[in-house]
Amino acid sequence: MKGSLLYEGKAKKVYSLIGEEYELILEYKDEATAFNGKKHQTFRGKGRLNNLISAHVFSYLKLAGIPTHFIQTLSDTEQLVKQSQIIPLEVVVRNVAAGSMTRRLGLEEGTELPEPIVEFYYKSDDLDDPFINDEHARMLMKVDQSDLDHIKAAAHKINNHLQVMFSEIELRLIDFKLEFGRLHDGSIVLSDEISPDTCRLWDQDTNRKMDKDVFRNDIEDLVEIYEIILKRLEAIVHV
Amino acid sequence: MKGSLLYEGKAKKVYSLIGEEYELILEYKDEATAFNGKKHQTFRGKGRLNNLISAHVFSYLKLAGIPTHFIQTLSDTEQLVKQSQIIPLEVVVRNVAAGSMTRRLGLEEGTELPEPIVEFYYKSDDLDDPFINDEHARMLMKVDQSDLDHIKAAAHKINNHLQVMFSEIELRLIDFKLEFGRLHDGSIVLSDEISPDTCRLWDQDTNRKMDKDVFRNDIEDLVEIYEIILKRLEAIVHV
Repeated sequence: MKGSLLYEGKAKKVYSLIGEEYELILEYKDEATAFNGKKHQTFRGKGRLNNLISAHVFSYLKLAGIPTHFIQTLSDTEQLVKQSQIIPLEVVVRNVAAGSMTRRLGLEEGTELPEPIVEFYYKSDDLDDPFINDEHARMLMKVDQSDLDHIKAAAHKINNHLQVMFSEIELRLIDFKLEFGRLHDGSIVLSDEISPDTCRLWDQDTNRKMDKDVFRNDIEDLVEIYEIILKRLEAIVHV
Repeated sequence: MKGSLLYEGKAKKVYSLIGEEYELILEYKDEATAFNGKKHQTFRGKGRLNNLISAHVFSYLKLAGIPTHFIQTLSDTEQLVKQSQIIPLEVVVRNVAAGSMTRRLGLEEGTELPEPIVEFYYKSDDLDDPFINDEHARMLMKVDQSDLDHIKAAAHKINNHLQVMFSEIELRLIDFKLEFGRLHDGSIVLSDEISPDTCRLWDQDTNRKMDKDVFRNDIEDLVEIYEIILKRLEAIVHV
């Protein structure tokens, strides 16, 4: 039974579960935000799409042996997860230059990187999620170098699996953001969500943007695009 | 004998040396620049001060066993160095929060860091020297992870020596920038200069700024401050 609201973020609410100390309910909202919350809009049906897309992606990764917080979906907009203490690190994996990287390093959007690149950002709305290195992470949060090495290795492995998965549904995985959390036993697992809100996905043939950039840059209807992705995932992943 | 001008930077000119393939002459200019060249001014005598201060610091480090490009001073404004191919990496070591770090991580200027922190910036005037991580460095320049680990270890060791040296002349080493280069045999050595242009130095008792920040922020006369530092170094380091 759904307990009290523990936390409300930009896209999700987190509830406790009565009688289950180490489990939580995530409820996905219909809200879309961008540019650190400066742009926001409600899209009817977005909560359902993100919940179900993320459930499909996490199920795929679980099957591939990646430890995650995901247990199961509970409804169209809710999923049951293991309780984890989120490490305040946005872990970005990039296969192709896009977004902030093009501006920072002077690369053209769409440039294939010679190897996938992992970046850490410090989750802090006040500071606009600054890009940091390992030494900053060790100073700012409760992680040591072996935790960071573990997270980087997991991020690369997840990238390999997701590239395969998305190519099966004819999408290129340009870049994506992960978050990790610590379970009560201290182990680190993949947490949060993976959806077109947290990935850049381009059509394999046309490079049409199939992710939150359609909202960020007012290109197309977000719900229509997310619906296509969910339909394609349903055809290849069993939840 | 001084050969042709090979390169002119913001603060130095680099000349070849006739008959010596693997040596160069650095000539220090009287120019001060800040904010990536947006602010600049000529200070009569600054070239001499930077040349001699850097010579003292490099002599101290050589004696401590740190491999450097420095050979000897040739005149008030010139020094002889080993030819090295500069790695386009600004290696910043921080002991106390100041400058860009305070803004990026929301730390108050003067906050002692729990451990010294090494940061890499990509030397690129066009891109405003962006902050990067190890993976970016490997992508952008001819270095592998063992080169980067070697550079980080050298930066920490140099920091230990410089903290001792500056405390002997009653200065706190807040942060500093290093550059490394590759000799013709492939080995990586400390290159460029170490001076109040490249270090933040605060008076041990009063925290008075004794570095280029006096120019950046129009606080005091740069030449007078640099003259004090050279005098103090002459008393403890023999060149």
